[in-house]
Amino acid sequence: MRIEERINPKSLQAAMAAAGIDVLVGASSENFFYLTDTLLLSHEIIPERLCMAVMPSEGVPWALVCYCEELQTRQDSWIGEIHVYHEFQESPMEVLARLLKEQGWGRARIGVEKRFLAGVYLEELEALLPEATVLAGDWVFDQARSLKTPQEIEILRAAGLETERAILESFSRSRPGDSEKEVANRISTRLLEGGGTSSWIVLAAGTNTAINHPWAGSKTLELGEIVRVDTGATFRGYRSDVARTAVVGEPNREQLGLYRKLREAELETISRARAGTRACCVYEGFVGAFQRRGLSVTSQAVGHGLGTGLHEYPILNGKEGAELTPGMVLCIEPAVLDSRGFLYHVEDLVLVTEGEPRILTGHMNADDLFVIT
Amino acid sequence: MRIEERINPKSLQAAMAAAGIDVLVGASSENFFYLTDTLLLSHEIIPERLCMAVMPSEGVPWALVCYCEELQTRQDSWIGEIHVYHEFQESPMEVLARLLKEQGWGRARIGVEKRFLAGVYLEELEALLPEATVLAGDWVFDQARSLKTPQEIEILRAAGLETERAILESFSRSRPGDSEKEVANRISTRLLEGGGTSSWIVLAAGTNTAINHPWAGSKTLELGEIVRVDTGATFRGYRSDVARTAVVGEPNREQLGLYRKLREAELETISRARAGTRACCVYEGFVGAFQRRGLSVTSQAVGHGLGTGLHEYPILNGKEGAELTPGMVLCIEPAVLDSRGFLYHVEDLVLVTEGEPRILTGHMNADDLFVIT
Repeated sequence: MRIEERINPKSLQAAMAAAGIDVLVGASSENFFYLTDTLLLSHEIIPERLCMAVMPSEGVPWALVCYCEELQTRQDSWIGEIHVYHEFQESPMEVLARLLKEQGWGRARIGVEKRFLAGVYLEELEALLPEATVLAGDWVFDQARSLKTPQEIEILRAAGLETERAILESFSRSRPGDSEKEVANRISTRLLEGGGTSSWIVLAAGTNTAINHPWAGSKTLELGEIVRVDTGATFRGYRSDVARTAVVGEPNREQLGLYRKLREAELETISRARAGTRACCVYEGFVGAFQRRGLSVTSQAVGHGLGTGLHEYPILNGKEGAELTPGMVLCIEPAVLDSRGFLYHVEDLVLVTEGEPRILTGHMNADDLFVIT
Repeated sequence: MRIEERINPKSLQAAMAAAGIDVLVGASSENFFYLTDTLLLSHEIIPERLCMAVMPSEGVPWALVCYCEELQTRQDSWIGEIHVYHEFQESPMEVLARLLKEQGWGRARIGVEKRFLAGVYLEELEALLPEATVLAGDWVFDQARSLKTPQEIEILRAAGLETERAILESFSRSRPGDSEKEVANRISTRLLEGGGTSSWIVLAAGTNTAINHPWAGSKTLELGEIVRVDTGATFRGYRSDVARTAVVGEPNREQLGLYRKLREAELETISRARAGTRACCVYEGFVGAFQRRGLSVTSQAVGHGLGTGLHEYPILNGKEGAELTPGMVLCIEPAVLDSRGFLYHVEDLVLVTEGEPRILTGHMNADDLFVIT
């Protein structure tokens, strides 16, 4: 995808101008990909092998990568100007500072990802560019990335549906007595076979479900227990993130009732995700939907943006004042504990539009508690 | 594993004293796990949900985690003192600074992971503790973690062998015409079934092998091509990292000869990994082994430490002066291009001992170029 299919460079540059940033440096995997269309596996496994994309106030971005990533970047990126540094022989910051100076940015206001870039790099860059002002540019990326283009929405939708399918097919193939790890492996394998990379999975049964991010283990699925899965992978550089709940064997009345209330509360929360609503109001809507049904709120957020990153701006918590805008793609994910300490969790993908929120996942039997028999 | 099975806390505290550090804060997944025995999945998927382990100059470490990670940390960790912060309502740094002050460290020399901790956190901590000195403590962790205990060595060895087995079994089940992604999925699935989590894989065929970290794609394995895989997963909190090379169909004379030379050069390089040798001398040994066989050196490092992290200290490059020490576990991984632009790559796990280096992987047919038929 070319940058024009993600965002108009001019609107990113306008956001930079509004933030008083002359030149913007993306170093995280998400922002490097956003600007260059290159997803580096190194970013995931060797994060210290820094790669950067630099967006000037006018013109197009350029890239600075480790010499060993040059070939992939040239193949995958639409960017013409690609510089390299030689790891172990020179610091990426030395090369970045030299290039910025050569291009006339030695006294500029330079926006970097202060929430991502390690302190040692930040200190080095500040020392190398004493006449420049190094400031936080995270916010500019956050805002730009929060508004998805039609192409991005289609990739996110397909990724979400593929993930939902992987969960349901794997649940169908699972039986009481299977271990958490076996069920999790089934889903992860299915995600890989569906084209995903870099998958992750939270899967637990019984009281293990109450752990926030449990590792699937040797515990077996026992009759009467709840199974909770929250999983995702990367598809064409974009993330998926779907949660579903199942019961092992025939559900009892409490389980059916609680799941129904959770699903209703989820849909009610989703209905609040309208353009012009503040993120905190969606959270408040969730709290109200839970309270009206006698459900206990245990989470300080009910969702988040999704895109090239997993937990993107805006986070739907009680303090976030961001206004929802058409083109935002959000995960809405309420969860509730039952009297036995089992956690029920549903998570779906929602597009903010000019009118009604559009649910992108959740069409495959999310209305009913899945029964593993 | 209790901390005593990884390291004597007193030797970590002695290293802190030598570095002039009164209190050491581990925030990366690796160092949090190292000090607490708790591997948080959140660390991998939501890195902004910071968790920290704090080691004082005397006594035992304590932990600071997000409220939603408290349950897992209490279940998995041997640590008694676990504090929580409430995300979106308070900053983890505010809580860290308050706790440090309460414990009398308000004017101390505080070692943090400057190579990991994002600039925004570092600036916040410095502002919150104006009378303290915040300095880089990465080095203390690097050195401590580089020396493995017998328990750690056994986990790393088992993880390496499991990974080697996954590759070989999957190669055996692969056929000409399979896509890169199919072969990669086979290996990743096998790693999950073998108990691994968080697996990653570099797999390519033909000229794609020349990319440093290619994503396995739809390209099919064609007769006469080289297939290169470099993969690993996490087993009980420790990483594996093994590379192997195969040929599709009967190898020609150049392929057999080049693979044999590569394997010989690997073993010659490994033989240099002896206690008292500097890391750069292992690299120089590799360069010599390549040059004597007429092979071109294209990489600026030939290996790295392995443990809870993937690329650990010491990195075996031409500038690293670190002396190898018994108990270090290293990956040695030379690679070479052939005349068709195919990259051959082997990587094995080596334990530095008082005597001969001990190869922990590489016992399953690494001497012969694997043939996919």
